[in-house]
Amino acid sequence: MAFRQCGIVGLGLLGGSLAFDLRAAFPELEIVGVARRKDTLLAAAELRVGGAPVFTELSREFSALGNADLIFICTPVQTIIQQLAELAHVAAPGAVITDVGSTKRMVMNAAVAALPANITFIGGHPMAGREQGGLGAAMPNLYLHATWALCVPAGAEAAGERLAEVITAIGAQPRRIDACTHDEIVALTSHLPHVTAAALANVVLGGNFDEVARQFIAGGFRDTTRVATGVPEMWRDIILTNRDQILPALDALITELAHWRDAVRNGDAPYLEALLATAAQRRGAL
Amino acid sequence: MAFRQCGIVGLGLLGGSLAFDLRAAFPELEIVGVARRKDTLLAAAELRVGGAPVFTELSREFSALGNADLIFICTPVQTIIQQLAELAHVAAPGAVITDVGSTKRMVMNAAVAALPANITFIGGHPMAGREQGGLGAAMPNLYLHATWALCVPAGAEAAGERLAEVITAIGAQPRRIDACTHDEIVALTSHLPHVTAAALANVVLGGNFDEVARQFIAGGFRDTTRVATGVPEMWRDIILTNRDQILPALDALITELAHWRDAVRNGDAPYLEALLATAAQRRGAL
Repeated sequence: MAFRQCGIVGLGLLGGSLAFDLRAAFPELEIVGVARRKDTLLAAAELRVGGAPVFTELSREFSALGNADLIFICTPVQTIIQQLAELAHVAAPGAVITDVGSTKRMVMNAAVAALPANITFIGGHPMAGREQGGLGAAMPNLYLHATWALCVPAGAEAAGERLAEVITAIGAQPRRIDACTHDEIVALTSHLPHVTAAALANVVLGGNFDEVARQFIAGGFRDTTRVATGVPEMWRDIILTNRDQILPALDALITELAHWRDAVRNGDAPYLEALLATAAQRRGAL
Repeated sequence: MAFRQCGIVGLGLLGGSLAFDLRAAFPELEIVGVARRKDTLLAAAELRVGGAPVFTELSREFSALGNADLIFICTPVQTIIQQLAELAHVAAPGAVITDVGSTKRMVMNAAVAALPANITFIGGHPMAGREQGGLGAAMPNLYLHATWALCVPAGAEAAGERLAEVITAIGAQPRRIDACTHDEIVALTSHLPHVTAAALANVVLGGNFDEVARQFIAGGFRDTTRVATGVPEMWRDIILTNRDQILPALDALITELAHWRDAVRNGDAPYLEALLATAAQRRGAL
């Protein structure tokens, strides 16, 4: 293990699950958890892996991170951006800071602006999650086999390698990618599906939804809207920090749905079947 | 068992799964399967439940159904409508015919137009399915705990009760509903989600989707688009026989997505969070 003491800022689903896996993979690693809420800290103090406490130390204060040589920021994206400025004052020279936020350009830019040259920031984004948030939903092996995007700035290659080794050790798959390409891809593969599922839930479960309709909810609707239960503040930040990429994706979906609407209105059987067949083929090939 | 011989027209996912459950629930029942394709009939002849053949008889001809006192039509909706006219010539006086199509108004109207007064038609729609179609995907207990809509015409209450007993015996939950209410509800709970998932798959997995993007596909996208692999011809028929109900549902979704787009464009954090919170609350309450 290339690091001696690891800080985790934000003890929700992602930070808590990460702590489980780091403790299991590195019994000697000191793990310092930082959270704002007292009940979160009390719950975190109870966590064990194989009988051993997950956290070496827990605190509400960033000053507890003064000796950490690796810090994961596991809060919503706009909070990450604020906390980078706070960490600039407490992180030790030589420390590596990373995050798990779902958008990367604004976080990378904020790190450049906030951090001194002797602190290295590497953007991170594990493609893993659950519908429920919070420390209570945290679990071991959440990241197993998940792609973990790493945005490594020029000159930070050695730190990037050391971080990639940690990520590999907990069973995830580090993939280097630049922040722009990352944000463009996840706008389509993650952010647009979330907005779509939430919009669909709002329409179907709105004013006219009643007990009779509830009996006609089947697995298809449950699957299609499953992600819509995600934590609103987290998704608000994701969307607000990737607006320019989500906008054309949303426009493309609205245009596609308008084609479907026209086909339905015109009773255009061949076109409808072609739209359905294309979707079945593309989704089936995944 | 109130019926002696049951016919099943169409041996795909729904017809095949129904045959498994009927054989398991009623060892004495004669089950006659009718399908167009020879390979389907050959595969059906091999099916067993607890060592016993599922089908008593298999045929490509409707004439094999002349002694059936209960007939399930398990084909796409527009085929059901055609086959009702063919069954009018072969079904025995007193027979009860039902179906498993996902829309009910056009099927009910076709039955009234096609069938003589001494044959009873009761519309049916089990809220169950899988992404894959065909007899190879058929399985026992597909209908366990599923709501099974029954549209019982005035005067057919006794036959409706007998059919409901059969449905209850295979573990499903019969629910009487009129065809108009049924079609209005499933436009929202089933047809709109299918169109949405298919449209999303077409947009995300379109021209620019490549091997790099594939690494950033996570469970959320898979869930949201899972139903899009459904059999295109079946869904074409469903959509074409419920156009007037699907159109306003699609319009409502496009309007909702336009609200999201405006919120994204304007960077309207409170409105975005409100939209997300409404969706999380409504979906979470299911």
